[in-house]
Amino acid sequence: MPVPDVFELARNGERRALGRLLTLVERGGVNGDKVAEISHPIAGSSHVVGLTGAPGAGKSTITGRLAAAAGLASESGVGVVAIDPSSPITGGAILGDRIRMDEVIDREGTFVRSMATRGSSGGLALAVPGAIRVLDAVGYDPVIIETVGVGQVEVDIAGTADTTIVVVTPGWGDAVQANKAGLLEVADIFVVNKAERPGASDARRDLELMLDLGAHPDPNKPTWRAPILMTTATDGSGIDELWDQVVAHRSWLTETGELLGRRQNRDRFEMLGRVDELLGGLGRKRAESEQGLALLADVQSRKLSPTAAAAELLADLLES
Amino acid sequence: MPVPDVFELARNGERRALGRLLTLVERGGVNGDKVAEISHPIAGSSHVVGLTGAPGAGKSTITGRLAAAAGLASESGVGVVAIDPSSPITGGAILGDRIRMDEVIDREGTFVRSMATRGSSGGLALAVPGAIRVLDAVGYDPVIIETVGVGQVEVDIAGTADTTIVVVTPGWGDAVQANKAGLLEVADIFVVNKAERPGASDARRDLELMLDLGAHPDPNKPTWRAPILMTTATDGSGIDELWDQVVAHRSWLTETGELLGRRQNRDRFEMLGRVDELLGGLGRKRAESEQGLALLADVQSRKLSPTAAAAELLADLLES
Repeated sequence: MPVPDVFELARNGERRALGRLLTLVERGGVNGDKVAEISHPIAGSSHVVGLTGAPGAGKSTITGRLAAAAGLASESGVGVVAIDPSSPITGGAILGDRIRMDEVIDREGTFVRSMATRGSSGGLALAVPGAIRVLDAVGYDPVIIETVGVGQVEVDIAGTADTTIVVVTPGWGDAVQANKAGLLEVADIFVVNKAERPGASDARRDLELMLDLGAHPDPNKPTWRAPILMTTATDGSGIDELWDQVVAHRSWLTETGELLGRRQNRDRFEMLGRVDELLGGLGRKRAESEQGLALLADVQSRKLSPTAAAAELLADLLES
Repeated sequence: MPVPDVFELARNGERRALGRLLTLVERGGVNGDKVAEISHPIAGSSHVVGLTGAPGAGKSTITGRLAAAAGLASESGVGVVAIDPSSPITGGAILGDRIRMDEVIDREGTFVRSMATRGSSGGLALAVPGAIRVLDAVGYDPVIIETVGVGQVEVDIAGTADTTIVVVTPGWGDAVQANKAGLLEVADIFVVNKAERPGASDARRDLELMLDLGAHPDPNKPTWRAPILMTTATDGSGIDELWDQVVAHRSWLTETGELLGRRQNRDRFEMLGRVDELLGGLGRKRAESEQGLALLADVQSRKLSPTAAAAELLADLLES
């Protein structure tokens, strides 16, 4: 079936057609491009929520509960993209997460898609914006992106959402670590999950301190101080308050005009990702060329360093 | 002090000078290139050992003990590069690891360097081969690279070593997960650490099964079946046997000529990394150009998809 027809079916609520579109986006190539061409002009109205945090922090359960809370408030259905870091090592644990999330999501209007990161992280940076766009274009609002916060790419993906939630747990660490890690920059809302455990109020205080230390408000710009919410995702306590804050942040974004800046940032991030993809292909083609193989041979015989070889291989492009 | 002088000092055993060189390599730029130019021609004789596995598997303790065992057998000193994934979230835990490793390394001849991954993972893929080259050129042999196996880049780095050790623990998961993750392809030696715990023999059996399933020996190529070793790194048991297997694998590589192939693969990997770095700079420059900003504006007004905009921005390069 041609891509435009699949797209029409998906817009009319056909879940299998939507799954098909997301698969095309993940695979990339000509059909993936076609999905982007069709969905880009009509996307852009959904609220994109990013959620990130350490493995085991309860992200999937929170995502599931948040989707349920959002669903009660929304007639358009909730889209969820869960990044499954099918890492060589942690693959199994994540599979467990997925099952946990499915347990708490049972509304008809929610569409959950797991995306694998196996392969290049570059691929992930390209596939996720495409998946957001599709869910947005077929009418899901909000779209929640859950990523595990263990890699720069994953944090960037969550960080380019309209509203980014960072989940921590008691005993998670002190302000120095978090500050060093740049979480201040991406978090619009902090969640201390497993709030019933000892150390929860310490975690909260550390975050408050960190926000105080990091606060350098520009008087010419509207500021938003990330609220810190306490949740126990397993029994759902604190989730309604979390959803209220997501809504409040969305209003703030719209009223201040910050939403536009976020969207521009996300577009720039995606366009650069596509530029890198195209240039990557160009680089590999050159490396496989006669000249590339000759240069590699010089590297291997230790006549030329890899840096010098790369510069020579691209000399004509770098001059332009 | 000019880079060649620092290099001379490092070759004469000045540890601070060596630290300086590694910092230059990490920072990149002109001085980093200079270090590569000087060290590349004289590097290439050290045995590079990669070690990877899940967080908490005991990698750092094994690395420390392995360095001690290697040091007893080597007059040239042991270099260790430990990749510290100062991830937004796991930074604290890793700091703990570093301390544990320092406890078990006390020989004068061992040089340990932690490298941060904060920033781009591309930066890591460039800095690590550079660090290996420096340690190799100033005379450390073997050079052990420890990476946490949670990202593709980290696994690739460990996987491009001469000998790659994959550490698992009891209860780590089944053969399906590991197979899916492609560990079969990178492991030359498996270690089941915490072998005193329940489930250790199950883990071993799963790995054996996995190796049986994955074995498709090419009759025209020499084959190496990854041995599976049981260790308890905390008390050092099994470490001598592990070191013996590393030495055996090294001999196998040399005798079969496979070492050359591994080295070529590593050179190619590094050269491609440098090509990507240069092209990435080119892409960012273009994106910031007048044309790039105009195309981005079209993306933002939803006239053009990011993919189409990227293709247009690079049209002249892609034709060539």
